[in-house]
Amino acid sequence: MPKQVDHRERRETIARALWRVVEQRGVAHLTMREVAQEAGISHGAVQHYFASREAMLAFAMDFAAEQTALRVNQGLQELGDRPHPRAVLRLMLTETLPLHADARATSRMSAAYVLEALHDENVHARARDGMLQGRALVEELVRRAIADGHISADRDPAAETDLLLALTGFTPLIELDVIRPSSALAALDQYLDRLFTTA
Amino acid sequence: MPKQVDHRERRETIARALWRVVEQRGVAHLTMREVAQEAGISHGAVQHYFASREAMLAFAMDFAAEQTALRVNQGLQELGDRPHPRAVLRLMLTETLPLHADARATSRMSAAYVLEALHDENVHARARDGMLQGRALVEELVRRAIADGHISADRDPAAETDLLLALTGFTPLIELDVIRPSSALAALDQYLDRLFTTA
Repeated sequence: MPKQVDHRERRETIARALWRVVEQRGVAHLTMREVAQEAGISHGAVQHYFASREAMLAFAMDFAAEQTALRVNQGLQELGDRPHPRAVLRLMLTETLPLHADARATSRMSAAYVLEALHDENVHARARDGMLQGRALVEELVRRAIADGHISADRDPAAETDLLLALTGFTPLIELDVIRPSSALAALDQYLDRLFTTA
Repeated sequence: MPKQVDHRERRETIARALWRVVEQRGVAHLTMREVAQEAGISHGAVQHYFASREAMLAFAMDFAAEQTALRVNQGLQELGDRPHPRAVLRLMLTETLPLHADARATSRMSAAYVLEALHDENVHARARDGMLQGRALVEELVRRAIADGHISADRDPAAETDLLLALTGFTPLIELDVIRPSSALAALDQYLDRLFTTA
């Protein structure tokens, strides 16, 4: 079905243009017109692919989440069969931090979406669902690591999950050059060393 | 100097209106015209108090940082003489989280400012300076706590500081109702319990 593939590709091209608008010009410029300009296509063409600005934003956010998941899955394959849960968690966390161009784009998109969610309940619901799914994955991992003896049984799995997710707070510190990426990774490694009882 | 007091008050009124615009309508609406409308004054009056949109944003951000510092200082006074460093750190961290109306307003302003910083180097420099000052305060506290035996001497003060600052990552999780405020506080307390060797 070449037509449908083209449709999907075109929407992804528009989503990437939208990310660049967030990054280079700011959320104030997130209009269909400016995204069309950045993508090098007509305003009418963007309207053909998305019924509304909201639909365009929703697709760009879902696409950002998919791209992050893809990067994590690629990283998992490099870890081989039965990777240590510490390595899996480290990969999941580092791929959400703005440490390389692709992760920066999706991370900035997420930050913009959280701000949009404050005054748009559809965006709020969609962003919340995405984060809850991510949280469930991390909690499952933490619980299995406790059951397998990789994390001490006296740790509270829900609280440990929340703390791990909170460490995405390195993001603004890295974006504003308050903490170097290498320092963030070193701190994260010290954290994981204390969380895990096995290496 | 009643005139100067009035000038300052008027600027603070405009800054608070700006915070409400970020919160209720979104960063895309951060224009002098919309802030004037929210403040219930004329566009010309806002232009009288601020030479540019950038000057207005810079003041609103500085004012947000001042208000946060004020809340921390008020909290410190309630802790009495020579408070335990764990209580001081807990106060500093919780006042940056969106756990009550004032903290929500300043926290959302900060998040908007980080996004603005991505494409505006003046905002980047100002936001970075503010965060570096906050980081220095936390590191000083951590180093003193290690020297006084409240934190184990085998902890790396720079990495511990970075981890504590990263825990502001509870913010988007609370904003999107992924984690309840009580869960965030419980997780933070478990974290601090492990960091400190004395209570």
